Amino acid sequence: MKGKRIDLGHAECGIARALQIIGDWWSLLIIREAFGGKERFSEFQKSLGLARNILSTRLKKLVEEGIFEAVQDEGTSTRNRYVLTSKGEQLYIVLIALWQWGEHHCFEPSELKYSMVDRDKMLPLAALELRAQDGRILGPRGFRTAVRAELPTSSAKPPAAAKRTRTT
Amino acid sequence: MKGKRIDLGHAECGIARALQIIGDWWSLLIIREAFGGKERFSEFQKSLGLARNILSTRLKKLVEEGIFEAVQDEGTSTRNRYVLTSKGEQLYIVLIALWQWGEHHCFEPSELKYSMVDRDKMLPLAALELRAQDGRILGPRGFRTAVRAELPTSSAKPPAAAKRTRTT
Repeated sequence: MKGKRIDLGHAECGIARALQIIGDWWSLLIIREAFGGKERFSEFQKSLGLARNILSTRLKKLVEEGIFEAVQDEGTSTRNRYVLTSKGEQLYIVLIALWQWGEHHCFEPSELKYSMVDRDKMLPLAALELRAQDGRILGPRGFRTAVRAELPTSSAKPPAAAKRTRTT
Repeated sequence: MKGKRIDLGHAECGIARALQIIGDWWSLLIIREAFGGKERFSEFQKSLGLARNILSTRLKKLVEEGIFEAVQDEGTSTRNRYVLTSKGEQLYIVLIALWQWGEHHCFEPSELKYSMVDRDKMLPLAALELRAQDGRILGPRGFRTAVRAELPTSSAKPPAAAKRTRTT
């Protein structure tokens, strides 16, 4: 382990499989663990099995970047809990996008042991869909980047804040 | 440059800013360029400004992983075009998720120079939303992983194939 990239290619997690292809993603894996309820250095270390110095460096950076808040652990003066900030929590769409891509493209059906489910009903999530403002579903060639200053004034606004309000 | 991480923190692209925080994402940046129409080694090299040996290694790996297909360039016997496969194209949801997160959390409004728009109407995209199978919008705490074998039989199926059909 100790700083060397571990082989995530056979991990049970769709995200991990996608990361094996896409790059060095310790930070997102730490964030994934936080979504699963992990908060303490020792918990991250145990579940991810990465070297203490690497975990320490990544957590420090993630705190600096405003993804985690370090909160002093109750009853200790030295240990922290690492709690996702709102900014960190909003990475859930990235995690789900990776999970769904990995699940769809990096597993044989018989290999799938875990599903991402709706917490209330324990049913698999719907696939993420990209939509235009008028609700049309867009495919992989349905979008492009554009210079904001060249768009009609009314289109230069970011997607409406209301669209970011979610129920849970 | 030459193998050293470049500073993407002030790039104009929401994805690049997210990557600065999240990790080493050359591969996704190469894929982003492919969505923008780049196909040739020299085009990727010019637009990303990364060292030839790094680009070469990444492209080789991405071909091996089935993200790109290497197609011999017309009129030459040595050069390839790198064309996204269907598997590669399906990473668009990941790219958009990163873009939207980066745009929302890593820019001041006045810094935003580019938008991701619907190619037909040139209007900004709707924000990606995570939904349950029954259509409820789920927030960052609205999902969890579950062991497939412990789910009701009807829920153990992956999201319906029809949901993956998109119009463009």
